[in-house]
Amino acid sequence: MGPDQTSPTSQTSQTSSPTSSPTSSTNLANLTKTAVKLSDGRELIYYDETPGQDRSAVDERDLPIVSTSSELRLDVLTGEITAVAGHRQDRTFLPAADQCPLDPSKPGHLTEIPAAEYDVVVFENRFPSLAGATGRCEVVAFSDEHAASFGSLPPSRIRTIVDVWADRTTELSAHPGIEYVYCFENRGVEVGVTLHHPHGQIYAFPFIPPRMQKMLDVATTYHQDTGGCVACAALAAEKEDGSRIITAGDHFTAYVPYAGRWPFQVDIVPNRHLPDIPSLTPAERTELATIAKDCVQRLDALFDGPMPYIGAWYQAPVNTGRDIWHLRWQFAAFRRAPGKLKYLAGTESGAGAFMNDIRPERAAAMLRGEE
Amino acid sequence: MGPDQTSPTSQTSQTSSPTSSPTSSTNLANLTKTAVKLSDGRELIYYDETPGQDRSAVDERDLPIVSTSSELRLDVLTGEITAVAGHRQDRTFLPAADQCPLDPSKPGHLTEIPAAEYDVVVFENRFPSLAGATGRCEVVAFSDEHAASFGSLPPSRIRTIVDVWADRTTELSAHPGIEYVYCFENRGVEVGVTLHHPHGQIYAFPFIPPRMQKMLDVATTYHQDTGGCVACAALAAEKEDGSRIITAGDHFTAYVPYAGRWPFQVDIVPNRHLPDIPSLTPAERTELATIAKDCVQRLDALFDGPMPYIGAWYQAPVNTGRDIWHLRWQFAAFRRAPGKLKYLAGTESGAGAFMNDIRPERAAAMLRGEE
Repeated sequence: MGPDQTSPTSQTSQTSSPTSSPTSSTNLANLTKTAVKLSDGRELIYYDETPGQDRSAVDERDLPIVSTSSELRLDVLTGEITAVAGHRQDRTFLPAADQCPLDPSKPGHLTEIPAAEYDVVVFENRFPSLAGATGRCEVVAFSDEHAASFGSLPPSRIRTIVDVWADRTTELSAHPGIEYVYCFENRGVEVGVTLHHPHGQIYAFPFIPPRMQKMLDVATTYHQDTGGCVACAALAAEKEDGSRIITAGDHFTAYVPYAGRWPFQVDIVPNRHLPDIPSLTPAERTELATIAKDCVQRLDALFDGPMPYIGAWYQAPVNTGRDIWHLRWQFAAFRRAPGKLKYLAGTESGAGAFMNDIRPERAAAMLRGEE
Repeated sequence: MGPDQTSPTSQTSQTSSPTSSPTSSTNLANLTKTAVKLSDGRELIYYDETPGQDRSAVDERDLPIVSTSSELRLDVLTGEITAVAGHRQDRTFLPAADQCPLDPSKPGHLTEIPAAEYDVVVFENRFPSLAGATGRCEVVAFSDEHAASFGSLPPSRIRTIVDVWADRTTELSAHPGIEYVYCFENRGVEVGVTLHHPHGQIYAFPFIPPRMQKMLDVATTYHQDTGGCVACAALAAEKEDGSRIITAGDHFTAYVPYAGRWPFQVDIVPNRHLPDIPSLTPAERTELATIAKDCVQRLDALFDGPMPYIGAWYQAPVNTGRDIWHLRWQFAAFRRAPGKLKYLAGTESGAGAFMNDIRPERAAAMLRGEE
């Protein structure tokens, strides 16, 4: 690998900065992208699977502009940054189903999405942890069906969501000062989700978050020592061992890592060494959608009720380590038994030392349906 | 500061390794310490505030020995260790109040503590995350009163608990292979506490946990660059600013850190540069007990009901960085508003980036009772 001269690439055509015109559309490879403004000035983008949709609906709410006081503070004892965002205390909290702000708008129930139906939409979070010079927080609504879930979506929609993540990564990486684009989904009230409607989030950070920085440091040291990629080596070891593999695809391998932190952790890793979501080919994206749906369905099938999880994308930072980084999608599932959750208490959040009560080999066997 | 030649010291006399005789007592400065064995061979130690207690009660249960399969696994992607402990799935989970294993024993209700009353006891966890070559997990029962809480204890008892932590730190530091002694309290079902009885835990790690390692790395770099202590500098800055101070004592300062991670975080820091709990003088321990009780009472008074928190002791590692380290007791409180908790979701646990919805200055004012 050579010096860090690569930059985020995309399978889709590039767009310039958003426009306030509600009818400016761009054709991506598979999607039609239309950016509009909400009544308080925030950007909302429709990603349509079918061209020619009417996206002229206007946000008829008279939303006050939320004053964002987000501030980044350095903890000198750890070298880590805390984002302080005092305005978020009043954010929407588990609204009644008929008040969901991610439903499409209809007469009498005006929401964040002006249209009467949609495929996937992205919009700026009304109560962002990061805003302006401190970054940007986006919401990705996966479906206009309130009762859907990521695992229940058709593979074609999951493929659309992957394309949207790729496009957002490319676009947000081009924003001034952004060093890391973090796509993730919090799923379940057990992890503090305040809206049930299926959705994810994107945080565009003006710094590399601590966990990614640590992964970058480890990968860099490994590369300096061996010339290789630590994630490629770990993947090869998992394939060689085999006991923790869930799915071995043409393009991706899904497995419970040897040193997994969570009761049921599934990492989906591209077999090919590549840095980020925009780098995925169309064929890779299509297989990824199928494998991801299968993995989430396996998690949901383990116990009664939906599995709470964090689905986190670890992709290369915007400006450094891009040759070294190996893309990874990690599902961290929190239910260790019916009615029992894994908590991040004194050992995990206080000491950063994870205690896993389920052996990864057993977790993999359960996810494969063998016990 | 010179090279790392110091080692854990104690205000109390040293004891040798535990004995199986139920009547072997040792006099510490303020406490009488008596080690016994439970029926499955685990060690239990009474720390009595009054000498002459009868500690001859025998564990009459016929406990099977729990097979501990704890295993340390290195995550090559992060360089961090996960402890895998498959046997813990069957551990005691929120027993009925009349089945509490931390109550003193009485006829018809035999518990972990054979005696009919006690002050403070320490015993090996029956379902340890770390055991044998992977370390040791201890439970510290703070009181024989089931309905008590740390904040409700008299300062004299909290002083006793500090002495116990000091003694455990000294003793566990002398165990072969132990690199870090971590004393902490998880408080509240909201952080996954499985027993309501007031108690803390001690993990003796055979490695330095990641969060402490990071603090050590930062402190070491600061010392190399400046010759000083980063925690001393941070404390001086907090005193200079003043807006986040809760209590300024003769020996300790309690404050909400400038870059605090939690809705209500209170750090109690010795004004004197010292590495660990055993290094505290009697006068320091006495003041610490009063200040800690006051801080926990302030946390409990914020909202309806007890405040869930993690109380974590950051002390020097056993074998390195002892001159550089500055002792710290950190209370991380999770309730950000009545009925609303702070969760560690995608940003915090996935990215390691903390988002704090309450400005530390406001948290400090609320804790001081000013709003």
